[in-house]
Amino acid sequence: MAARKVKLLGAWVSPFALRSRIALNLKSVEHEFLEENLGSKSDLLLKSNPVYKKVPVLLHGDRPVCESLIIVEYIDETWTSGPSILPSDPYDRATARFWAYYIDDKFCPSLVGISKAEGPEAKAEAIEQAKTGLELLEKAFKDCSKGGAFFNGDQIGYLDIAFGCCIGWIRATESMHEIKLFDEEKTPGLVGWIERFCAHKAVKDVMHETEKLIEFAKTLLSKPPPTH
Amino acid sequence: MAARKVKLLGAWVSPFALRSRIALNLKSVEHEFLEENLGSKSDLLLKSNPVYKKVPVLLHGDRPVCESLIIVEYIDETWTSGPSILPSDPYDRATARFWAYYIDDKFCPSLVGISKAEGPEAKAEAIEQAKTGLELLEKAFKDCSKGGAFFNGDQIGYLDIAFGCCIGWIRATESMHEIKLFDEEKTPGLVGWIERFCAHKAVKDVMHETEKLIEFAKTLLSKPPPTH
Repeated sequence: MAARKVKLLGAWVSPFALRSRIALNLKSVEHEFLEENLGSKSDLLLKSNPVYKKVPVLLHGDRPVCESLIIVEYIDETWTSGPSILPSDPYDRATARFWAYYIDDKFCPSLVGISKAEGPEAKAEAIEQAKTGLELLEKAFKDCSKGGAFFNGDQIGYLDIAFGCCIGWIRATESMHEIKLFDEEKTPGLVGWIERFCAHKAVKDVMHETEKLIEFAKTLLSKPPPTH
Repeated sequence: MAARKVKLLGAWVSPFALRSRIALNLKSVEHEFLEENLGSKSDLLLKSNPVYKKVPVLLHGDRPVCESLIIVEYIDETWTSGPSILPSDPYDRATARFWAYYIDDKFCPSLVGISKAEGPEAKAEAIEQAKTGLELLEKAFKDCSKGGAFFNGDQIGYLDIAFGCCIGWIRATESMHEIKLFDEEKTPGLVGWIERFCAHKAVKDVMHETEKLIEFAKTLLSKPPPTH
């Protein structure tokens, strides 16, 4: 039986689509990336993700998989010959899943909140929230990496992918608002991790370029980056 | 080495804590259920889940696992000798995870929205949203069960647990607002599934009694049921 073709419906600006791309790269899965126009979504996207109508959608043959973290787990469980994405120990898996959930549930909204904030007070509060989130993630890095280079230890894994895909938008937010979120003093582990993550062979060719994200954000005027 | 003790920090009213209890029952894991006073949370809860400060928390020895769906996966991966909770096929797993995500992301908030709605128009809209959610879940039941008695086929699994724990609050909401959400015509699959799920040996002794939930909700006056 011929291998089923793999297509990814995504958008280059989306950190969530980027997760799927990196997971596919990590597993050396040949795939086609289909850039969606988020202002006028394709029939294929609407048909493949009728509930949320959002990117990313992974099409494995004609079967769609939706939601970025679910896609990453699907890729890990389907292409088992590549390096493992989830940790092998159940407790480490639960911990990685918890922080990935936190990133989507709290950290990303706090980052978007900086751009959406109305007035200096609301903005200062949003910045504080994002910084608190990064400090929590710094602690998570220490706990999860166990002295290794990545959240997943010696090689990148689930939580690296979940968080790493936000790096571009964090940097763009720093630049656009002239603030510093990553901090040599408060988040030294993350500062080093960013360099290693962005230089990884599964990441470097697809990682967001900050300048392009800023340009994109400017064309949308004051609109925030996409939340999914 | 002695087996590590298992404790569950929960609250009887919480559908999310109920997920963990059913998963532990399904795997025949001996455990102690510690009822939290949600108005005055214990130091153990605050220490075990410092990020969200919420139930449920599973304590396996001294290691905490937080977030109900993550706990269910942890239980499945840790006590592997019991029946599998997640489907074995990666695509079926992704589908179950997607609908569980949908339940937490959309369906539960729509249910809470019925009680929180201010004015008849907002209430009608919230009811419509919840009904739409149930119709989507009816379709998911047909797709996932593949003709079996449960979402997971012939035995209860991840999505049964994720959704089944909402049954009590759905019924309580129906009763308190004198509405009908489950429907013999529009959700016939779910109507039959509810009976089978609630009668399951891992479920029947811990399932919410609708009357008790209603009584609890009344003591909170117009406050909505807990969202986690």
